[in-house]
Amino acid sequence: MKIGFAQINSIVGDFKNNAQKILLSAQKLVSEGADFAIFPEGVLSGLPLKDLTLYKKFIATAQDLLTDIAIKTPLPIIVSCPSLNNECVGVYNSAYLLENGEIKAIYNKHLLPNYGALNEPRNFDAGKDFCVVQLKDKRIGITICEDIWTLPNVPTAGRYNDCVRPLEYFSQLAENGEGVDLLVNLSASVFSDKNDMVRRKGGMLEEVSRYVKAPLAWCNLIGGNDELVFAGGSCYVDASKGVCKCLAKFKEDVVVVDTNDVSSHEGDATDFNGIADLHDALVLALKDFINKIGIKKVMLGLSGGLDSAVVAALAVEALGKDRVVGVSMPSKISSDHSKSDAVALAENLGIEFHMISIADVVDSAEATLAPLFAGRPRDVAEENIQSRSRGLLLMAISNKFGALVLTTGNKSECAVGYCTLYGDTCGGYAPICDVYKTDVYKLANYINKQAGREIVPQNTIDKPPSAELRPDQKDEDSLPPYDLFDAILRLHIDEYKSVSEIVEMGFDRAVVEDVARKVAGAEYKRTQYPIGPKVTAVAYSTDRKIPVAIKRGMQ
Amino acid sequence: MKIGFAQINSIVGDFKNNAQKILLSAQKLVSEGADFAIFPEGVLSGLPLKDLTLYKKFIATAQDLLTDIAIKTPLPIIVSCPSLNNECVGVYNSAYLLENGEIKAIYNKHLLPNYGALNEPRNFDAGKDFCVVQLKDKRIGITICEDIWTLPNVPTAGRYNDCVRPLEYFSQLAENGEGVDLLVNLSASVFSDKNDMVRRKGGMLEEVSRYVKAPLAWCNLIGGNDELVFAGGSCYVDASKGVCKCLAKFKEDVVVVDTNDVSSHEGDATDFNGIADLHDALVLALKDFINKIGIKKVMLGLSGGLDSAVVAALAVEALGKDRVVGVSMPSKISSDHSKSDAVALAENLGIEFHMISIADVVDSAEATLAPLFAGRPRDVAEENIQSRSRGLLLMAISNKFGALVLTTGNKSECAVGYCTLYGDTCGGYAPICDVYKTDVYKLANYINKQAGREIVPQNTIDKPPSAELRPDQKDEDSLPPYDLFDAILRLHIDEYKSVSEIVEMGFDRAVVEDVARKVAGAEYKRTQYPIGPKVTAVAYSTDRKIPVAIKRGMQ
Repeated sequence: MKIGFAQINSIVGDFKNNAQKILLSAQKLVSEGADFAIFPEGVLSGLPLKDLTLYKKFIATAQDLLTDIAIKTPLPIIVSCPSLNNECVGVYNSAYLLENGEIKAIYNKHLLPNYGALNEPRNFDAGKDFCVVQLKDKRIGITICEDIWTLPNVPTAGRYNDCVRPLEYFSQLAENGEGVDLLVNLSASVFSDKNDMVRRKGGMLEEVSRYVKAPLAWCNLIGGNDELVFAGGSCYVDASKGVCKCLAKFKEDVVVVDTNDVSSHEGDATDFNGIADLHDALVLALKDFINKIGIKKVMLGLSGGLDSAVVAALAVEALGKDRVVGVSMPSKISSDHSKSDAVALAENLGIEFHMISIADVVDSAEATLAPLFAGRPRDVAEENIQSRSRGLLLMAISNKFGALVLTTGNKSECAVGYCTLYGDTCGGYAPICDVYKTDVYKLANYINKQAGREIVPQNTIDKPPSAELRPDQKDEDSLPPYDLFDAILRLHIDEYKSVSEIVEMGFDRAVVEDVARKVAGAEYKRTQYPIGPKVTAVAYSTDRKIPVAIKRGMQ
Repeated sequence: MKIGFAQINSIVGDFKNNAQKILLSAQKLVSEGADFAIFPEGVLSGLPLKDLTLYKKFIATAQDLLTDIAIKTPLPIIVSCPSLNNECVGVYNSAYLLENGEIKAIYNKHLLPNYGALNEPRNFDAGKDFCVVQLKDKRIGITICEDIWTLPNVPTAGRYNDCVRPLEYFSQLAENGEGVDLLVNLSASVFSDKNDMVRRKGGMLEEVSRYVKAPLAWCNLIGGNDELVFAGGSCYVDASKGVCKCLAKFKEDVVVVDTNDVSSHEGDATDFNGIADLHDALVLALKDFINKIGIKKVMLGLSGGLDSAVVAALAVEALGKDRVVGVSMPSKISSDHSKSDAVALAENLGIEFHMISIADVVDSAEATLAPLFAGRPRDVAEENIQSRSRGLLLMAISNKFGALVLTTGNKSECAVGYCTLYGDTCGGYAPICDVYKTDVYKLANYINKQAGREIVPQNTIDKPPSAELRPDQKDEDSLPPYDLFDAILRLHIDEYKSVSEIVEMGFDRAVVEDVARKVAGAEYKRTQYPIGPKVTAVAYSTDRKIPVAIKRGMQ
């Protein structure tokens, strides 16, 4: 078989653009000899749809375009599209075989994830029937994403206990001698640093192929959509032959895989490549968010510190240096190095740069409030006035020039609310809000190493982190050292470990309790934080759902 | 039978407080002759729990307290508590019969809502077994909330199609002559202006009682928790006798209902009482949010306009005048009436009041930016500087005095982004963010009528609404008249009607398209909006889930 893989990047709701991409890919693949082509989950509508499924017009438009594609496609294609459940008012997440101008088969996704960043049962009904089609004398089974994430050894926390799982069905077919020649899975697998190891030797896809006794063609979505990153890396896996052919990660790739001519386990050993994949995911997410909403330029405050330096470098990689503007906004207490490091960064990146003092705005705010504040000591109120003056000036420049402000906070500081709402949290996208501080350091070193020169100034990497909202302030005055801090946060946030469980693992009780208390106390700040890409198991905006008005310390 | 109803207000995760309230209620009810007592869903843990269920310690603490309550309760009680599903790693939403120091029966909720503001299947596994217990020679069936929202005539959009629904089970028992003498439902029904008509004559509860051929004891939660308002109004319904006994709405109520001494359909005709219930729901939500997080005072900007006046009045009702501070922050272009109306409101309410000019902060921000902005016309950037200067000053006062800022925006302006992020959107709670502007007018008139005097100044009600960010600005320069505007928004947002459907209903296409385009364009602003109480069918923060980076105009 010659299977066409069309790993393409869709825009949510941009049916015409997506349909055109589908047809262009189909033409390329037929010209390269493909027998048929497969596309990722969500390719026509974009993903995630969320409550767009509740608007009838949306589903109707998708179906209209599907009919049009069926007429125009030059080869048989298996493509994903939402469809109406005519038995009631619901919607299915469906896959269609389009061949000879017609819809030849429909499959409705069975297993709808409701965990992590996903809640598909809110918007889709579960399918009941299985689907095996015939193409070029081969029997091909069709599944969608989660349908194959239910191997006997993969825990599913009580989900899907009531239905026959697709893999069981195809495994049973094989046992009965009626097995398929190929299992197709249209996928939109959400990237995270824990979730992208499926293709490696001995990984999940190989196990699926072994379990159903057939090769697997896994076509995965590529692109950033709001918080979600889809990493691509589609592949053909035949466990019985030790065979794996992989497509590119983090970019579109439209290629024919000849199943008679595949090498053994190509490129699978380094499937999750640590900081390199994290870096590529962040760049893709930022590029797609900005381009898909049609913004020409981004801007950000450059403090001379690590977070803003890394965000600026990622933005230049995503958008090019001509679309990124840096603004240094020193106060009276800003150190000399915070200014010189910001200048050095902007020069290293070659971006437009401005330096604007916040001193006058801070002075006038303090003078305005002086009668009301008379007799009270200086405290966090004055610290936050500085941060909010920066937010005010940055947003004014954003409004005047139409540039979107990037928020530079990281996952560690956001965990405990070590940030100023309406100050440094201002912005339309937060590129590293799901990256722990220890990983921000790794990104800075990776960026410099890849460039073969200093992009992030070495002094920015070496100096102790500081918010510089009062003289000689250091992050470690208020927080544990970042290695310890991040280790606790990964357990408490990403793995839902309670304080007592973390203490049992050998951490100091007082430190863990203080961190957990601050995490609970910052829940309200996170409800107002800009969105940014999910790259860990539990991102705040998509995965962590904790009430605000609670008795703290109980989880 | 003498049924004790304990309609009490729990705090999420505050097990000791909640357990103490349960035992105090049990003592009161036994002293008043109750045979047994029933409590609302979520009474011990508080609701909603969301991902607190993923922390093992949280469930373990709840179970420990449950054992303690079983020992101490002076009469049999049916009480709700999360429990571990020992077959896998999941959690059940359970009801327990505690009697004579022991757990006598457990029921696990079957039907787990995943729509609107709720996603229970994310956090709970569905129960499989039904539960009938014996108390005082009576057979009593136990159900939890959604379990009874599945009458044959209530649409469920394909949900729950695979399981035997509890009402079918109890109806079948009755058909077989084995019916129960009483059906108990522990409930936490989310208030909205569309969802609180269940108790009226001919309403849902009466239908349930008729369907299962038994009286129904419906014990509903009371209280505000984050965005959710639980309205109480528990009741005893016997459809076969035309009998209905109701508890108080919007406050705690612990009473014995003697089923041999109930009057006919008491208080059910006015079950959803329009603006009065909306008003009471908003006051309860605000009071509970502030008190449950332990904040002493609230403050807000008083613009002289309608929204801030209504929020100030609601805050005084919720917290008392000594806990509310108003701040008027005029600019150079503020009208005289905006200042005098703010003064009049503060005097009517008797609250602490300050007037602080933003002129100097605005001037210094504009002067700081002058070199960068040279040669460019004044535009939205300068308008927003005014709003953000107010935000900066208000937050500084909040930080200095520890008062929480209330955000005053309404649902109509938030729909189209007619607000300034980090300006008038600053704050920790937004009391009317789910109230359409036309309903804000009704609330103002209701407040004045109830007070028997002018609280909201009549001039505030009468003058044309204006953001006053440029001279002679009026809301209607940018927006349709509010009657028309709100009618379109209710269809597009609360009822998920597409543009074409709304046009077919007789609305002008250009107006509807403009509104829908602005609604889609403001999605990113809503992701950063403070939380506030859900009072309509589709509140932004809990119910509306629409991606940001989408092709606009497709829904």
